[in-house]
Amino acid sequence: MQEVKIIGVGMTHFGKFLERSMKDLSREACATAFTEAGIEPQQLQAAYVGNAMAGLVTGQECIRGQVVLRPLGIGGIPVINVENACASSSTAFHLAWLAVASGAYDLALALGVEKLYHEDKKVSFTALAAAMDVEIIQQFLALQQPKKAEAGEGGGKPKSEGGGRSIFMDFYAIGARMHMQRYGSTQEQFAAIAAKNHYHGSLNPHAQYRETYTPEQILASPLVSYPLTRLMCSPIGDGAAAAVLASPEMARKLGARQPVTVAGSALGSGRDRKMNEPDIVARVGKVAYEMAGIGPEDVKVAEVHDATVYGEVQASEELGLCPAGEGALFGAAGHTRLGGKLPINTSGGLESKGHPVGATGVAQITEIVWQLQGRAGNRQVAGATVGLTENGGGAIGVEAAAMSVHILKI
Amino acid sequence: MQEVKIIGVGMTHFGKFLERSMKDLSREACATAFTEAGIEPQQLQAAYVGNAMAGLVTGQECIRGQVVLRPLGIGGIPVINVENACASSSTAFHLAWLAVASGAYDLALALGVEKLYHEDKKVSFTALAAAMDVEIIQQFLALQQPKKAEAGEGGGKPKSEGGGRSIFMDFYAIGARMHMQRYGSTQEQFAAIAAKNHYHGSLNPHAQYRETYTPEQILASPLVSYPLTRLMCSPIGDGAAAAVLASPEMARKLGARQPVTVAGSALGSGRDRKMNEPDIVARVGKVAYEMAGIGPEDVKVAEVHDATVYGEVQASEELGLCPAGEGALFGAAGHTRLGGKLPINTSGGLESKGHPVGATGVAQITEIVWQLQGRAGNRQVAGATVGLTENGGGAIGVEAAAMSVHILKI
Repeated sequence: MQEVKIIGVGMTHFGKFLERSMKDLSREACATAFTEAGIEPQQLQAAYVGNAMAGLVTGQECIRGQVVLRPLGIGGIPVINVENACASSSTAFHLAWLAVASGAYDLALALGVEKLYHEDKKVSFTALAAAMDVEIIQQFLALQQPKKAEAGEGGGKPKSEGGGRSIFMDFYAIGARMHMQRYGSTQEQFAAIAAKNHYHGSLNPHAQYRETYTPEQILASPLVSYPLTRLMCSPIGDGAAAAVLASPEMARKLGARQPVTVAGSALGSGRDRKMNEPDIVARVGKVAYEMAGIGPEDVKVAEVHDATVYGEVQASEELGLCPAGEGALFGAAGHTRLGGKLPINTSGGLESKGHPVGATGVAQITEIVWQLQGRAGNRQVAGATVGLTENGGGAIGVEAAAMSVHILKI
Repeated sequence: MQEVKIIGVGMTHFGKFLERSMKDLSREACATAFTEAGIEPQQLQAAYVGNAMAGLVTGQECIRGQVVLRPLGIGGIPVINVENACASSSTAFHLAWLAVASGAYDLALALGVEKLYHEDKKVSFTALAAAMDVEIIQQFLALQQPKKAEAGEGGGKPKSEGGGRSIFMDFYAIGARMHMQRYGSTQEQFAAIAAKNHYHGSLNPHAQYRETYTPEQILASPLVSYPLTRLMCSPIGDGAAAAVLASPEMARKLGARQPVTVAGSALGSGRDRKMNEPDIVARVGKVAYEMAGIGPEDVKVAEVHDATVYGEVQASEELGLCPAGEGALFGAAGHTRLGGKLPINTSGGLESKGHPVGATGVAQITEIVWQLQGRAGNRQVAGATVGLTENGGGAIGVEAAAMSVHILKI
């Protein structure tokens, strides 16, 4: 296996863009990444494209990569369309990494793109629910129907899931409640961490939301699922992010400035595990740390999957960035804020930067590349030489269905 | 790169199975492959799962692999969900090949699974149409509406594509007509090749249709799109196929009997090319031939993508299995029939064996493995030591969106 370098990244603003297409978003993210890499699109040897929701939101299935890359003049090369729910583009990045590491290619693209926002919110939420086993959801809904009919709430066809939120928010809420019970963490601590993320997001020109909020304002925002309020949860949004990966020789040939090394790239899936067995984040993190030959103490900056603030708490602990059970305490104490011991989610995280599902994985990598190259502007972490990303997707049993951890170095 | 061995394959019958789930079909195909490979499911180190249509047909998106593998006790390992339309599972196989070839894993699964049949045919055909750029389809349909309204055929919302056939049949028909015009091939020749495929399928216990037909009967079957009649086209169907790939060392350790070598594995995508530039089948075939260090003259048996009989004609020529322009002549002369110079589609091909989109790629590989191992029963090709598969998917511009060619040796 050879080393793999990231020689260009690019991302769109994240937001609700009814008028923008997947092609348009992809074009913008790719154009920036190609310019940074100093390549023409036609030089690429393979493309790995992550998208999760287009099938149910836009009707486009099967060949999403080919469809968005054609307007850029990219064709002929292998195009691999990858899905892994919210971890779709970190999976695409992992495949691109392996392909270049193996020597099969010298120059590959990893692209994540998502159009999740829809005029009919139910479309977005139904698409999100398809990141679980839909048979189980249908069985659950079917079981609910007779009860509702008895209670006079109407029977008939099972309804699509909710109209106002993703089913995943309830899962995160369950995790958060168990954490509060077991470790004594508090809703106020969660609010402090969310406030930190919104502060970070306010410094990020690419973020979907750039407002700052006090913990009090966050607690006062509408309840999604106790203890999670709306401002502790990631919004619905659209966007794209792209990264160009190269062999060291190709990076030299292209005169890459400040190439970033992929020191660890790990992917795993959920399993039916016992209570005392390690969680998916810990398992996949361990593989990435071992590959990179570093430990959590070496990480200077991290982007973790805070689809809700509890995701950040859990990831911080499982990745060993703080002691077990102390994720909420650690965050609320300010250690993960810019200027703290270990800044986490300097981009604003999924809560503030936004979470266009299939784009999130490569967007996290983009933020870490910017940090390592000293290009993060007024959210720059001093001395950021090693960064980590953690990106989870979907649910299978009690775990995320997919999980990817990357460690980047400069 | 190390050599890669196929040490186990398995497939379900192909057919219309309203009562069977993706899980059920996957379980059957995998169980056979695991038994042949002499492994427990838990020994797998990575799984690549190809599916094209489940999102729009069953509502399951994002984590289809995790969902179908969980009941088999497979979890924890990287699960990569791949789409490339009709070439989804050959793409999955290609990724599994690269992963093992690179040394990243010693034991990997490639699975293709599809539930395409639906009580409402429109659901199946709409899903198939999503293997093209749906924006272009929508623009086309929008253009059609005013005309229809004028003609009193009703206006309003653009309808989903047709009620009775896939849009792809029209594309194949255009190709067939151009071939007739340019080379003087005839509808009767196409019928003779289709009759050969239905004869082959009659010998295949896994085939969806096992009737034999005379060329006259084939010509007399309902017209789909001139010159293609229904019996020249692949049906709608469901099924699954699985292959276990191993490093040579792992194959030895497991005591694999008659392991098959992946001598060539190539993947490409469609591009906007000029008239005189080589076609996607030729381009991807060339890569596979070069990797395998062989030429078309060395191929003893082939499975090619005959979504319609014209697909077989085109592939035979582009892969150099017969001279350019002579595919129809070559087939009609009996050279591709069992006992002929170069038997093609001994499984019955997509026309007779069936074409559960995401399962087709690995099913083709399964047939060639059986042929190379001398296990093809009364459709065995004598002296089959080298076999080829060609699997195309979707459409982008005037080419298939994805194309994969594999060369297997024993």
